[in-house]
Amino acid sequence: MKDFLDLADFTPTAIRELVSLAGRLERRPEPSALPGKVLGLVFMNPSLRTLASFQAGMARLGGSSFVISPGSSWKLEYRAGVPMTGDAAEHVREAIPVLASYADALGIRAFAGGQDLENDLGEPVFSAIRGLCPVPLINMESAVNHPCQALADWKTMDDLRTPAQGGRFVLSWANHPRPLPLAVPASAAQMAAMRGMDVRILRPPGFEFPGPIMDRVKAAAATGGGSVTETARREEAMDGAHVVYAKSWGSTRAYGDAAEDQRLRAALAEWTVEEDWFGPADPGCVFMHCLPVRREVVVTSEVLEGPRSRVILQARNRMYAQMAVLYRLLAEKGD
Amino acid sequence: MKDFLDLADFTPTAIRELVSLAGRLERRPEPSALPGKVLGLVFMNPSLRTLASFQAGMARLGGSSFVISPGSSWKLEYRAGVPMTGDAAEHVREAIPVLASYADALGIRAFAGGQDLENDLGEPVFSAIRGLCPVPLINMESAVNHPCQALADWKTMDDLRTPAQGGRFVLSWANHPRPLPLAVPASAAQMAAMRGMDVRILRPPGFEFPGPIMDRVKAAAATGGGSVTETARREEAMDGAHVVYAKSWGSTRAYGDAAEDQRLRAALAEWTVEEDWFGPADPGCVFMHCLPVRREVVVTSEVLEGPRSRVILQARNRMYAQMAVLYRLLAEKGD
Amino acid sequence: MKDFLDLADFTPTAIRELVSLAGRLERRPEPSALPGKVLGLVFMNPSLRTLASFQAGMARLGGSSFVISPGSSWKLEYRAGVPMTGDAAEHVREAIPVLASYADALGIRAFAGGQDLENDLGEPVFSAIRGLCPVPLINMESAVNHPCQALADWKTMDDLRTPAQGGRFVLSWANHPRPLPLAVPASAAQMAAMRGMDVRILRPPGFEFPGPIMDRVKAAAATGGGSVTETARREEAMDGAHVVYAKSWGSTRAYGDAAEDQRLRAALAEWTVEEDWFGPADPGCVFMHCLPVRREVVVTSEVLEGPRSRVILQARNRMYAQMAVLYRLLAEKGD
Repeated sequence: MKDFLDLADFTPTAIRELVSLAGRLERRPEPSALPGKVLGLVFMNPSLRTLASFQAGMARLGGSSFVISPGSSWKLEYRAGVPMTGDAAEHVREAIPVLASYADALGIRAFAGGQDLENDLGEPVFSAIRGLCPVPLINMESAVNHPCQALADWKTMDDLRTPAQGGRFVLSWANHPRPLPLAVPASAAQMAAMRGMDVRILRPPGFEFPGPIMDRVKAAAATGGGSVTETARREEAMDGAHVVYAKSWGSTRAYGDAAEDQRLRAALAEWTVEEDWFGPADPGCVFMHCLPVRREVVVTSEVLEGPRSRVILQARNRMYAQMAVLYRLLAEKGD
Repeated sequence: MKDFLDLADFTPTAIRELVSLAGRLERRPEPSALPGKVLGLVFMNPSLRTLASFQAGMARLGGSSFVISPGSSWKLEYRAGVPMTGDAAEHVREAIPVLASYADALGIRAFAGGQDLENDLGEPVFSAIRGLCPVPLINMESAVNHPCQALADWKTMDDLRTPAQGGRFVLSWANHPRPLPLAVPASAAQMAAMRGMDVRILRPPGFEFPGPIMDRVKAAAATGGGSVTETARREEAMDGAHVVYAKSWGSTRAYGDAAEDQRLRAALAEWTVEEDWFGPADPGCVFMHCLPVRREVVVTSEVLEGPRSRVILQARNRMYAQMAVLYRLLAEKGD
Repeated sequence: MKDFLDLADFTPTAIRELVSLAGRLERRPEPSALPGKVLGLVFMNPSLRTLASFQAGMARLGGSSFVISPGSSWKLEYRAGVPMTGDAAEHVREAIPVLASYADALGIRAFAGGQDLENDLGEPVFSAIRGLCPVPLINMESAVNHPCQALADWKTMDDLRTPAQGGRFVLSWANHPRPLPLAVPASAAQMAAMRGMDVRILRPPGFEFPGPIMDRVKAAAATGGGSVTETARREEAMDGAHVVYAKSWGSTRAYGDAAEDQRLRAALAEWTVEEDWFGPADPGCVFMHCLPVRREVVVTSEVLEGPRSRVILQARNRMYAQMAVLYRLLAEKGD
């Protein structure tokens, strides 16, 4: 295992082994697994869970870490061939190899620009970085991918004994004041499909999954034995659901068009997940969300704090999932 | 010992034992006391001493720490039942359990809002957090409390052999360009009263201690054998003083009213602590301040750098006091 | 060795020994050299390399570190005798001894103000700090000095077997949208002169080295056996060059005068280092730059990514150079 950039780089079996390693590290800590190892964490965007869970996870394996945060350094350029006369004082073509020379692995967070869908689908920052990093590279959320979240979510469903083959996974769009990136919903759908689940993407008109992302989810379903459909009809999607995974994202039809995106979402106030939604679902249906979540906007407090909610377990599993990744990338003897 | 939130949760004897443990860790370091332990530090407001002393202290006990700082994450909501359509992207009801799931203890800093005295006296953030944190919680300064500072100050006076029973402790308001929170003065008075001292709160009209805080100081005096009085007459307050503890705070009569607060303090330029103040005091009277301090505004450079000043010792004791707290909360075998 | 503030505090022999120690720590890691030691890093200005390389280097020696970054604390005053009624909430006369009381060594970064050349040449912040820090102090870039960068650059040339005595070192001004500090060019010239090289400062009219800095370079040349000349003629400077070290700095003739500085540099677009420059140089001439660097402004991508470029090695050597400094300052048994 060289990098951790995308679930699609791994077979479902390899992911299952990672999840299993995460569980082992949770049950049987290995505080001396990574002595003297240094993890570099580079945030081009804000973070709470990712920063804390990576730093804590690295410490729990006996290693250490440093953090480059958006406020404490300068802006990085990633485009090729641009005369650097603007805000960015350094190019990733220098910054990444330099930071890699101090660290045994690098994690990078670089959100979508949110202006140009095609550009964001091409993962401009990670494409620019590819090949520049001689040490293992970890995607801590890119334009349209968040594999660490997906791995934690997989483990969460295993912990809950949620059915894999035959399990019904509803990824539901939800209300939010602003257009958010596609990284989490794209990764969640891909993960559930790869886990062998029946994935139903529930979203209002104007918020369809882009073709290339749908293709990725279908490819994941093909390798994992799952399936994927997309619908705007809630009752249909919720029928027999084992998981409702809520997440907002920006309009894909009006991508980068803030005014039109606002106009579309102004009519979607009923897309706040509430207990009524779960009527047609499996009685044990759980509620998942990657956090941060806006109460009474994305989901009611009643559901979020109610017996269906597994959001804290998901977040907690971020640490164990990432510890498994770090262990595989850095431990002298992987298993 | 489950949390460290308020001196009032402890008996004077328990505090004396903590101070004694701090002294022992200063004299006889225990660099392997907390192997593999992780401390999470969550700052909703800026910090210099607190961040540095907690991180250094944890490292000196063999543990590690991570920091969430105000600039690198998003705003947290703490009010109940508010639809989250504004700035705050996450509620403490998720953030705290999540961060607690990565850490063996959490420290939180959340200053007073400074607009509504009654609200601030209710400790809105810590009240919202109470019960959400399954791991030990440490108050790194809340709306009206700063127990880590108070513990360090107690140790400082012990180090200096300042009399406890019968010692005279003057908490003096001081000039400052802006209204500051009540956390430090409230905790300093409470601490000195609990230590058994004769506490004199010296402040101009308009800056009286609020009733509920005065009640807390009186309760501390009752458990510790001290006493408390409040006055605007400097000569009277300074008579025989062993300690002058300077600190500015906002007008409590014009709390949240910036214009009226400014009007009141415009006439108080003589409330800059200077050598002349010490005439009626005990010859060995020391000057204390929690820092940061504005020179020639709160206190003259002459006093701050003169032989009475103990401000560096106070700050240094922050680390040892906090190491004692961490040791008690986290060491496998407390003493 | 008490502090690491300026190459001029050391003999060329002492620097050679530090560089040699850096190489030894690179080849034979000592992950248990500094157990329990704590390094405090105080940044009054942004950083990427310095923060990452110091934190990683300290971790690789078995120690730990904490970071005060410009966004997470308040502004520090360093001037004497100023009533502190403005932005700065704390004076370095308190902040430095306090932070030193938590750490075994302190690194400080404080850039030039850029308004008043004479003032900046006097190193106002470090002058104010001198004598306040009871633990070893490290200059992580001051107004006109960057000894950590200089030490790394010395090691880089040793790694490359660049001639010392007789080696030809061209420090070339380069284009940039803004006036930058003199710290790196001053230190690079001083370092190369101290290493015994023939230093040629190539810069357009209006960007002459200030007299006091030129005096420092000459003094370094005198102790190291090197020489220094200054010219605006590129062909002459490049003749037989072994190293071209590019760096922009603000006009010294129009220091602090942004409009005049812009007017001067508007005519200097051809000061972007490109392959053509190297015609008269030694065939093995390398390109160096401290980073961050603006592509197609300071230097072409062709040169920066071409076979002459050693910028990544330079940056990587920051970590090893600083590990040598920390080892000398902190290891129980230096060698």
